[in-house]
Amino acid sequence: MILKPAQKHKSLLKNDRFLRALLRQPVESTPVWMMRQAGRYLPEYRASREHAGSFMDLCRNADFACEVTLQPLRRFDLDAAILFSDILTIPDAMGQGLYFETGEGPKFRKTVRTEKDVNALPVVQGETDLDYVMNAVTTIRRALNGSVPLIGFSGSPWTLATYMVEGGSSKDFRQVKTFMLKQPEAMHRLLDKLAQSVISYLNAQIKAGAQAVQIFDTWGGVLNEPCYQEFSLGYMRQITTGLIREHEGRPVPVIMFTKGGGQWLESMADTGADCLGLDWTTDIGLARKRVGDRVALQGNMDPNMLFAPARKIREEVGRILRSFGPGSGHIFNLGHGISQFADPEHAKVFVDAVHELSPSFHG
Amino acid sequence: MILKPAQKHKSLLKNDRFLRALLRQPVESTPVWMMRQAGRYLPEYRASREHAGSFMDLCRNADFACEVTLQPLRRFDLDAAILFSDILTIPDAMGQGLYFETGEGPKFRKTVRTEKDVNALPVVQGETDLDYVMNAVTTIRRALNGSVPLIGFSGSPWTLATYMVEGGSSKDFRQVKTFMLKQPEAMHRLLDKLAQSVISYLNAQIKAGAQAVQIFDTWGGVLNEPCYQEFSLGYMRQITTGLIREHEGRPVPVIMFTKGGGQWLESMADTGADCLGLDWTTDIGLARKRVGDRVALQGNMDPNMLFAPARKIREEVGRILRSFGPGSGHIFNLGHGISQFADPEHAKVFVDAVHELSPSFHG
Repeated sequence: MILKPAQKHKSLLKNDRFLRALLRQPVESTPVWMMRQAGRYLPEYRASREHAGSFMDLCRNADFACEVTLQPLRRFDLDAAILFSDILTIPDAMGQGLYFETGEGPKFRKTVRTEKDVNALPVVQGETDLDYVMNAVTTIRRALNGSVPLIGFSGSPWTLATYMVEGGSSKDFRQVKTFMLKQPEAMHRLLDKLAQSVISYLNAQIKAGAQAVQIFDTWGGVLNEPCYQEFSLGYMRQITTGLIREHEGRPVPVIMFTKGGGQWLESMADTGADCLGLDWTTDIGLARKRVGDRVALQGNMDPNMLFAPARKIREEVGRILRSFGPGSGHIFNLGHGISQFADPEHAKVFVDAVHELSPSFHG
Repeated sequence: MILKPAQKHKSLLKNDRFLRALLRQPVESTPVWMMRQAGRYLPEYRASREHAGSFMDLCRNADFACEVTLQPLRRFDLDAAILFSDILTIPDAMGQGLYFETGEGPKFRKTVRTEKDVNALPVVQGETDLDYVMNAVTTIRRALNGSVPLIGFSGSPWTLATYMVEGGSSKDFRQVKTFMLKQPEAMHRLLDKLAQSVISYLNAQIKAGAQAVQIFDTWGGVLNEPCYQEFSLGYMRQITTGLIREHEGRPVPVIMFTKGGGQWLESMADTGADCLGLDWTTDIGLARKRVGDRVALQGNMDPNMLFAPARKIREEVGRILRSFGPGSGHIFNLGHGISQFADPEHAKVFVDAVHELSPSFHG
């Protein structure tokens, strides 16, 4: 019998509490991972980075991407691995010319400012146009060998559009909002192309071995509510509708994270996502009351809390666990990516505290 | 009969609908002003600035400060004037050495990082240590001649502390949060000194002629809720308790604005403030339901909406008015300061739209 690619991976997970919690199924303790857990705060990451060259060189080399993905799992008792990549791979594959200047964040050589610019953009085919990402997913999945699930991810269409229109990071999002307000139809065409690309990209990641996916809407929170609904959430709904939701005989949960979106959780819970990511400004207990049993919640300790003494980190983990309360449906995480200045020992205190303190809220 | 200083100003206001709306008293139309309404988007401001020298030179010269305060009132039908000054005058008066580098935002020559640094800081006496601000208030109040009320303002203790500890603006607030988490007692002492200083400063502004005051908590929204309560809101409560709340025979309303504080409005409404400022991420109608009739609400159009075509600006004003609904207790404003790139003609469209569209919601 010839195995289809998907079946090659099919194996029992040794630790699947992350996937179970995403589906609000019983778990013995609250699963935990950290956004940006493979990153500059780890000395072994900085060493790999020196060998690999640029950040994108690291992303494009499957062996390097696999190595840095696994690094935090060797140090900490994490319940999930996340693909090492960048949220801006899609615009890069569209030909926008992603590059990084030291200390300045991501930049693009081209900007999108006119209808013509939008029309010239291709829809990205994940398997072919971003084959280096799929190679990384396959390599990492194999290396994980069933220890914990692998999370795939993408930026949200709105978030990708902000970088493409601004040409990089922004403080006031003036260019992208001007484009949205003055040329709403062109903006919708851009967002639709991005949504189609994200669907293709995430489905390719799922086929290559990602067992859950997260949509990072880093900049949805800079919009007012009607614009958030129209220009960000609508396209994330399109994505959740277009994704492969079952693979290898298991559901593939979808996590939706809008930083600064704490006021809009009810609408987010209606998109078909399985789980909502929360930043640290939202009380997770109040959030749970608001979304009821429609979705799981992921979060939400302030990453800066890792600069506190160990005792305080444990207290804060306890406070968030108590706020969420008993029962499943909580994936512990930071409310945003871990700081490059965080002490890995404090990250360990955080992860261990979740495992030590959470069992009393389950079972 | 010898007039006391306060009585010198005592005069009937030709237009007091801003003050009435702050107290939720009936008005014939919704009052409107714009945060940072005296600023770089106005060519006449840029001309004044060229004459005056640096930004702080402009603040320190009462005649210049008066001139730029009045500039937007000559162009637009605004219902309030706001003192031209900076939120960082208090730390500057404490000896921290405020300066501005082009394109980089405010900076301090000294930072506050230790208990010793905190202990060395004086409490600022508004009338003496910031006499140049009081001169500006007196001059502006006289020049306004009862046309519209004058708003005084200060940064919140937490917001001032972020700049003092970081030494300027910050993306991640790592230093100030580390200080807060590692040395909470020193942080509380710093915040208490700042709160005492803000009380003295705002009371001096009120005595000099400010008819309402706003506390700008620009960075309260970067905290989680327990930290917001403990390190930001608590000190704003201390301020509202310590302020002169009636002067010249009229109440002096207090506006409290935490950018990014939309999730915490209920607690903010319990501080004794008369009005809460809202950024554009909050639906003002939902906010009104949440705070009931305890406070008025100020806001909340996205400043970037001024880059939209005129028709859209009017639509957005209408949407916000409908969301708030009928009755008093709404002061229209932007959800944050007007952009330096805004077209003054579009600011005029905004202000006029509020006056044209709002009467049907009153009376």
